[in-house]
Amino acid sequence: MTQEEGKNVKGSDENAAVVLIGHGSTLPYNKDVLVGLQKRLEMRDGFKGVKVAFMQLNSPSIEEVLRSLAESGIKKIVALPVFVADGEHTTKDIPEKLDIAFKGEWAEIGKDVKLIYAKPMGVDDRIVDILVDRTKEAEK
Amino acid sequence: MTQEEGKNVKGSDENAAVVLIGHGSTLPYNKDVLVGLQKRLEMRDGFKGVKVAFMQLNSPSIEEVLRSLAESGIKKIVALPVFVADGEHTTKDIPEKLDIAFKGEWAEIGKDVKLIYAKPMGVDDRIVDILVDRTKEAEK
Repeated sequence: MTQEEGKNVKGSDENAAVVLIGHGSTLPYNKDVLVGLQKRLEMRDGFKGVKVAFMQLNSPSIEEVLRSLAESGIKKIVALPVFVADGEHTTKDIPEKLDIAFKGEWAEIGKDVKLIYAKPMGVDDRIVDILVDRTKEAEK
Repeated sequence: MTQEEGKNVKGSDENAAVVLIGHGSTLPYNKDVLVGLQKRLEMRDGFKGVKVAFMQLNSPSIEEVLRSLAESGIKKIVALPVFVADGEHTTKDIPEKLDIAFKGEWAEIGKDVKLIYAKPMGVDDRIVDILVDRTKEAEK
């Protein structure tokens, strides 16, 4: 990603980027869904240049995406776990990867980057709406 | 669950039940979120007596819930995986449990039960709405 592409990745703050973190899978569906969500999120006001990263099994990795954003000059990154609820993955596995992304040889590149870790989806009426639809679709 | 409680579990079809299937976790969050979604889904028209079951680590198990519903006289069950996307869990692990629920000594109890397996959430604008909110909340 060039410096130019790195600009305006989030309209409300020119130096902020959003990274959607997926579980990763040997099957194609997790990556397909994450990329689908990424495309739709990019269409929202203030969400340009949203990135996708995977905890495991798919590429790019969390570390790769964070480092690439930092190299492009991004100073603020929101890491957003696309998970239903907190669990071992979101409280241990992903934070470990966020933690090592800017360690060692990457410390210099990451030293001015503000990395914010968002919450998973949780209890939300919009998920309930989706569950209603999936039930009705399945009954057809 | 008594026979009486088993009635009207889904208003549009008195003999249908919905089972929200969670991943399960050693941490409390997955179960908390599933139970929170269950409570909200039960408040929707036509969704009475929604059940929660877990693929692993939490109880009740998928088999326990399906058998309990069948024993109470339910003849139609929608098993709804509360997952972002299909993966090994939704295409292999959960179907295996759905498959064994009414095998062996449970075959007689399950013989007239229509078990429908719904799709996970997938790419949906309502998830995108949630991701926008989680990003904004994290940035505060």
